[in-house]
Amino acid sequence: MDKTALSGALASLKEKRPLVHHITNYVTVNDCANITMFIGAAPVMAEAPEEVAEMVSMAGALVLNIGTLRKEQVDSMVLAGRRANELKIPIILDPVGAGATRYRTETAQELLRDLHVDIIKGNAGEIGTLAGVGGSVRGVDSNGMTGDPITASRSLARGTGAVVVMSGATDIVTDGQDTLLVDNGHELMGRISGTGCMASSLVAAFAAASEDRVLSSAAALAAFGIAGERAAVKTSSPCSFKIMMLDEVASLTPNDLIDGARVREP
Amino acid sequence: MDKTALSGALASLKEKRPLVHHITNYVTVNDCANITMFIGAAPVMAEAPEEVAEMVSMAGALVLNIGTLRKEQVDSMVLAGRRANELKIPIILDPVGAGATRYRTETAQELLRDLHVDIIKGNAGEIGTLAGVGGSVRGVDSNGMTGDPITASRSLARGTGAVVVMSGATDIVTDGQDTLLVDNGHELMGRISGTGCMASSLVAAFAAASEDRVLSSAAALAAFGIAGERAAVKTSSPCSFKIMMLDEVASLTPNDLIDGARVREP
Amino acid sequence: MDKTALSGALASLKEKRPLVHHITNYVTVNDCANITMFIGAAPVMAEAPEEVAEMVSMAGALVLNIGTLRKEQVDSMVLAGRRANELKIPIILDPVGAGATRYRTETAQELLRDLHVDIIKGNAGEIGTLAGVGGSVRGVDSNGMTGDPITASRSLARGTGAVVVMSGATDIVTDGQDTLLVDNGHELMGRISGTGCMASSLVAAFAAASEDRVLSSAAALAAFGIAGERAAVKTSSPCSFKIMMLDEVASLTPNDLIDGARVREP
Repeated sequence: MDKTALSGALASLKEKRPLVHHITNYVTVNDCANITMFIGAAPVMAEAPEEVAEMVSMAGALVLNIGTLRKEQVDSMVLAGRRANELKIPIILDPVGAGATRYRTETAQELLRDLHVDIIKGNAGEIGTLAGVGGSVRGVDSNGMTGDPITASRSLARGTGAVVVMSGATDIVTDGQDTLLVDNGHELMGRISGTGCMASSLVAAFAAASEDRVLSSAAALAAFGIAGERAAVKTSSPCSFKIMMLDEVASLTPNDLIDGARVREP
Repeated sequence: MDKTALSGALASLKEKRPLVHHITNYVTVNDCANITMFIGAAPVMAEAPEEVAEMVSMAGALVLNIGTLRKEQVDSMVLAGRRANELKIPIILDPVGAGATRYRTETAQELLRDLHVDIIKGNAGEIGTLAGVGGSVRGVDSNGMTGDPITASRSLARGTGAVVVMSGATDIVTDGQDTLLVDNGHELMGRISGTGCMASSLVAAFAAASEDRVLSSAAALAAFGIAGERAAVKTSSPCSFKIMMLDEVASLTPNDLIDGARVREP
Repeated sequence: MDKTALSGALASLKEKRPLVHHITNYVTVNDCANITMFIGAAPVMAEAPEEVAEMVSMAGALVLNIGTLRKEQVDSMVLAGRRANELKIPIILDPVGAGATRYRTETAQELLRDLHVDIIKGNAGEIGTLAGVGGSVRGVDSNGMTGDPITASRSLARGTGAVVVMSGATDIVTDGQDTLLVDNGHELMGRISGTGCMASSLVAAFAAASEDRVLSSAAALAAFGIAGERAAVKTSSPCSFKIMMLDEVASLTPNDLIDGARVREP
């Protein structure tokens, strides 16, 4: 794995400082705004139907996160997403809780049908559900999937034309052909609320600045994981850990990816 | 007071790791999600009418918090609450701001009429308002109640069939018959936003894992209070205090309740 | 500049402990609640049409922040604002993102037409947009304005009857006649989400406790800037900085404004 390319993805992000339009949940939205700023991009949250098409047109990426979905919000996701598709602005879908309720599963499927989604980022239960292999989700937490995660991710990528990013102890990034695995991260990241949503914001910020979505997504997850690893050296208390992890995200340089990224092929 | 039972309530929570479904306000929701994780349970926030009945059916408790209520949200509270009642899943109502506006007072009363609420958790002004003895609330802050808090709490408990949890310098927990008082806590907890909401999340997490609602609620408040006391030893700055208090919540063990709980009968 | 008056504004706030009613965005709302408490006032967030007129009637100031506006929310802003006007309760409008989308620009203009707004608090792009001189906004970030900021701020103040507060490296406060400039602050404040919204909450808390809106707004920005300067001495990591800045807000005394305020006439 050529880490120079990962490093270049972060350098490109910091140079372009892309706007990342979020339509997201109200639980972790503040964390998403801050991490987007800390990595070097600019967040905007907007979901009124009157403005989403106009707002997304100035963005470098669009995050659709269904963590606290409502019908009106999903309608706005489609409006924003259609405009993003017209303008070739990458869409990142985080299907939070797909598999837990029928409404979440069906909404994620509808978004995938109505829009061209560039990147699907979920946990094993969510990806397993959307891949149709059987995923188990309780609330918004994964209880895993049936079968092999890499096979399921590739299958979902081929079926949708999206890059699939499956978070876990080892993250999987695949477009159905090329696959990268990311070993960075720390178990403390799973003990706080918002890690998954923040990862999606980072994946979007990186996608806004690079053409290669497999590479840029792997770079985003490696960057986040390195920040978590560094914060975990300083504390094992989860709330302090969150603050320190965000500080580490803000201090990441392209060089840190060369030194710290643990990205490999399967 | 046998502290072994308090300790057992926390042990049971950590063993069962219950899902706690919240329909709550957008001000303190992130704090509620994190504290639910830190104590050892799993949070989910969902309020779409299409999914709340399904979501609550996998939960161990349901929190209804009217801190930023809207009509659609209250409708979803009723949908979720009815299903919770059918499945005997405990409902915790936090009537934030009841007494401040007629809409909040009436909504809390309607929820108590339409649903069997297992636990009502409020401040003196809110409990006084719902008990009909006259409570004073400015915004979401208590200005106290008319008359004796224990008598009012017992009266509300008898009238509703709910356990009443009244927060204050000394917390009151009563089912109308049995009453426990909790002396844990620190005044810094009143200087930050979200303490009341976080307390409700903890009360719900404990209720999901124990049958005895008076005991489990007292254990929840004692645990929270111990965490506050410990954080207050380290700092008097309120924002740092909040981080440290959440860290202390995450480090609590059942034994800490035996050592630190100050729970007594009136 | 007589700093005794600035100091008196903070003393008055701490004595009166006013309630500040917010109708605001869901991204930074928790920060707004906490900073309102930390400076010595009391926050309440409420936006249901059934209650906003009643809630605002017990408040000392009303914040209207369009950061994540929706039609229903804007309708509630008008309901609350009309009642605030009747009761001479000051309204602070934060036109977040005006200039970025037509909907935000038009909504800000409609609020200024339908209500008497006492204070407009925005960045250069937003103020330039509303002043009609041409402001540039990307998402919620200012890309500056065409022409002279003081001239534009005065012009908007004269046209609307509002005090205009324009944030920037040097903040401008003007009622069209009297103008004050505030040099306090630190560039780290621009690296975190929510600084602008928190500033509006402080401006509102100060406005609730003083008659002189130019002076009280300058005092609010000076206080916030001093807190930022002090936190920046301790850390350069943005997430830790935010915690420490909020701690510094909580520790501010009236005397600190005499020592630290850098407020001057143009």
